Amino acid sequence: MTRSLDLNCDMGESLGAWTMGEDAAMLDLVSSANIACGFHAGDPPVMRRTIRMARDKGVRVGAHPGFADLYGFGRRRISGERPQDLEAQLIYQIVAMQGMCAVEGHAMTHVKFHGALSNMACEDADLAALCAGAIRAVDPSLVFVTMPYSELAVAAQKAGLAQACEIFADRSYGPDGRLTPRSRPGAVIHDPAASARQVLEMVVEGRIPCTDGSTLPVAADTLCVHGDTPGAVEIARTLRAALEAEGVAIAPFGA
Amino acid sequence: MTRSLDLNCDMGESLGAWTMGEDAAMLDLVSSANIACGFHAGDPPVMRRTIRMARDKGVRVGAHPGFADLYGFGRRRISGERPQDLEAQLIYQIVAMQGMCAVEGHAMTHVKFHGALSNMACEDADLAALCAGAIRAVDPSLVFVTMPYSELAVAAQKAGLAQACEIFADRSYGPDGRLTPRSRPGAVIHDPAASARQVLEMVVEGRIPCTDGSTLPVAADTLCVHGDTPGAVEIARTLRAALEAEGVAIAPFGA
Amino acid sequence: MTRSLDLNCDMGESLGAWTMGEDAAMLDLVSSANIACGFHAGDPPVMRRTIRMARDKGVRVGAHPGFADLYGFGRRRISGERPQDLEAQLIYQIVAMQGMCAVEGHAMTHVKFHGALSNMACEDADLAALCAGAIRAVDPSLVFVTMPYSELAVAAQKAGLAQACEIFADRSYGPDGRLTPRSRPGAVIHDPAASARQVLEMVVEGRIPCTDGSTLPVAADTLCVHGDTPGAVEIARTLRAALEAEGVAIAPFGA
Amino acid sequence: MTRSLDLNCDMGESLGAWTMGEDAAMLDLVSSANIACGFHAGDPPVMRRTIRMARDKGVRVGAHPGFADLYGFGRRRISGERPQDLEAQLIYQIVAMQGMCAVEGHAMTHVKFHGALSNMACEDADLAALCAGAIRAVDPSLVFVTMPYSELAVAAQKAGLAQACEIFADRSYGPDGRLTPRSRPGAVIHDPAASARQVLEMVVEGRIPCTDGSTLPVAADTLCVHGDTPGAVEIARTLRAALEAEGVAIAPFGA
Repeated sequence: MTRSLDLNCDMGESLGAWTMGEDAAMLDLVSSANIACGFHAGDPPVMRRTIRMARDKGVRVGAHPGFADLYGFGRRRISGERPQDLEAQLIYQIVAMQGMCAVEGHAMTHVKFHGALSNMACEDADLAALCAGAIRAVDPSLVFVTMPYSELAVAAQKAGLAQACEIFADRSYGPDGRLTPRSRPGAVIHDPAASARQVLEMVVEGRIPCTDGSTLPVAADTLCVHGDTPGAVEIARTLRAALEAEGVAIAPFGA
Repeated sequence: MTRSLDLNCDMGESLGAWTMGEDAAMLDLVSSANIACGFHAGDPPVMRRTIRMARDKGVRVGAHPGFADLYGFGRRRISGERPQDLEAQLIYQIVAMQGMCAVEGHAMTHVKFHGALSNMACEDADLAALCAGAIRAVDPSLVFVTMPYSELAVAAQKAGLAQACEIFADRSYGPDGRLTPRSRPGAVIHDPAASARQVLEMVVEGRIPCTDGSTLPVAADTLCVHGDTPGAVEIARTLRAALEAEGVAIAPFGA
Repeated sequence: MTRSLDLNCDMGESLGAWTMGEDAAMLDLVSSANIACGFHAGDPPVMRRTIRMARDKGVRVGAHPGFADLYGFGRRRISGERPQDLEAQLIYQIVAMQGMCAVEGHAMTHVKFHGALSNMACEDADLAALCAGAIRAVDPSLVFVTMPYSELAVAAQKAGLAQACEIFADRSYGPDGRLTPRSRPGAVIHDPAASARQVLEMVVEGRIPCTDGSTLPVAADTLCVHGDTPGAVEIARTLRAALEAEGVAIAPFGA
Repeated sequence: MTRSLDLNCDMGESLGAWTMGEDAAMLDLVSSANIACGFHAGDPPVMRRTIRMARDKGVRVGAHPGFADLYGFGRRRISGERPQDLEAQLIYQIVAMQGMCAVEGHAMTHVKFHGALSNMACEDADLAALCAGAIRAVDPSLVFVTMPYSELAVAAQKAGLAQACEIFADRSYGPDGRLTPRSRPGAVIHDPAASARQVLEMVVEGRIPCTDGSTLPVAADTLCVHGDTPGAVEIARTLRAALEAEGVAIAPFGA
């Protein structure tokens, strides 16, 4: 039996004169790229360059919208905004990326939200519904990348959007199937072998190993690999090799 | 014999908590709206609101891209940027507006460049070609609003784009058919009657009255009415009435 | 017996091409101006112009720092930032305003925080301490404008900073001496006569009338008048006249 | 006989999540740091961190103001702004840096303008006078870092400001004593030995070797070493060693 898994990476997060990440190298390893839309990072020339590289390497592209917060890189939690204003910002980012992809002849396939917006929406049903609504308003055929057992997954289902279930290699999962907050001990898995084991359990056995020893069922579609940490490329390469060694083919979700 | 003329107005130039212009009132008077795309003015909620108002009042919408310069409202002359970087910024703005319009069910029809970018491109063939190329890259069926005898008009023709020829009521024209620079005496026509006479000569007689007494042929499609000056709405209303009194119907270009 | 009260108004909140408020008219009515520092509103030319007007009209000037959030006008609640990063932003804003004042020969006298930052710090002792620390780091002789019964007042006292106790005419107070949140009914007092009565009770009787019928002692130093609401100038003029009619002189705090 | 030369480097040009340059390493090699003020690069936490590092390593700090243009990193040429608006922006940047330095107990000593603003002011007497006026308005005792034979040097002299004459190791000089524009062949000196020779000729012989074989007298005070190019630290280290080997002591100007 063949199993396959998508590898996705957030990229296109350089800005003007400032460079972030090693996008060209990561594009040789992943099957999907989530590209920043200019609100928390990225700018039009960076977007265009990243889309073209992804297209030329056969990597699928999605929009990676975040809060309008370049200074905070979209990592600051922002609230108190009118919902319709935030919705307009998300729609803008998604259509801008979709349009830039169309100009480059590389159809955009999915949407994955960024940073604090994503973290907040995982736990807030109203915000998650707003996110799903923004995708749906643009194009109901876009795939929504969501985390298992999150409000985003619930909202995607309610909105009738196709989902790609995203898992993490280097983060532990609580008994509710959600990521352990970074503020807690054991949130981050530093051992590459343990990371690989966790991914294989999720992909091959179809279950999330939770921190209390229990497990929860999961149908993983895509694994997030980080692009902005030191040694990111080497970590991604190792993870990919470990997966392939266990018979997991790396291929775009839904393909 | 019936003559018709489009009235266009730049709008959607509010930003966050700051309001500019009386867009709702202007939309009752014009047949085309050029909406800022968030780079020199405007933001996604403002764009969405303005698109919806225009749609509901049957006014056509175009993108109004400018330099990435909120602080200077796109009026500062900016140079020294790599052409491909500027092109990506223009494409981004055009696809973002086009996408926002599509979400609201009101197809975008045209593009008109803003402020210093437009002024510079009127005189710089390379910059004009870059502007035309950005439109063409997005959608070759978009109408390019250009000024007569400008490099923008030349570039539009070379790029094979449909043009709408834009005239001004309150600005005088030099013997080369271009606007007298604001820094020169007589650049601005303050007398409403003189403004109306100039427009009628261009529309009915098909000729530009130049400051040296000569005339140049012109096939005017659209008249720019300003939205951000004191008394803008009243001026636009008076001008519209004067045109209609002379048998000029106000209607979208190319309709 | 003579009583006096300072009137303060937030101003200098225009930005580039966008105008907000009627600063010139308000400066004829108030004795203190809190000027935005360019992070939530304002820019260097606006700051300079506003400082000069205040100086020429004999109005004292303070810094009005807020979150780094022009798009949200400093009204969005932002969290998750490293405390030392936020502290550096506040110090920057305070020294920038102090330096601009020095250049114009009009010594800056006080600091009042803006919008969501102020609201959050009123309820969060750590954030309030950070705010007080930023003032103290710049100049321990600056007066800290604080609200009674807030964490800001506590932090100011702990930091050994002189305080000016700020009251509101158009907002009701809960039994804990804090403003009723805007989301609750009765938060805003719309009747000018009731507004004037509340202020007089606080200033003349030295007590806050709370929404549950109780009162709390207060030694009011300054009354906030709003500059960015419709009819702001007229409301301020009426309030000032009502105070003066009751024998309350309008004069800077601590003068 | 002992000769001494200051080494200066532009730094503090990181922004939020984006890092630029190796400031800590450069601070071990230079005697003066020009720190970005948040308009073309830098932000308050970056400024504070860089000031503290400079202070702890005994390196002098100056303001490095530029155009309000984060997106373009201050390298885009911007014109059409009202002079008094630009002046206010420069004053704001200088007082902000001066104030941040005062808070950290490390008095700011000088000002050096950045990028396109500096390039334009070297050739434009009015702009140069505006720059000099901004420094003078803040503090007439600040040292103005200028290039020989530039309008900035003329303006500094007219304004009665102390100057530090800045030279470059890796740029050639035309017969007018100004840098050869980067667009011309031979503008950049790539050979480290040739760079060192040029600097020694300027410092030891007191003359600029011009591209036409002539020389011009110069009294060099400070040498600019770049911090944002690949291998910047190694290049600076080599240059410093070459200077010291020839008996040139590295020490702050005017010390």
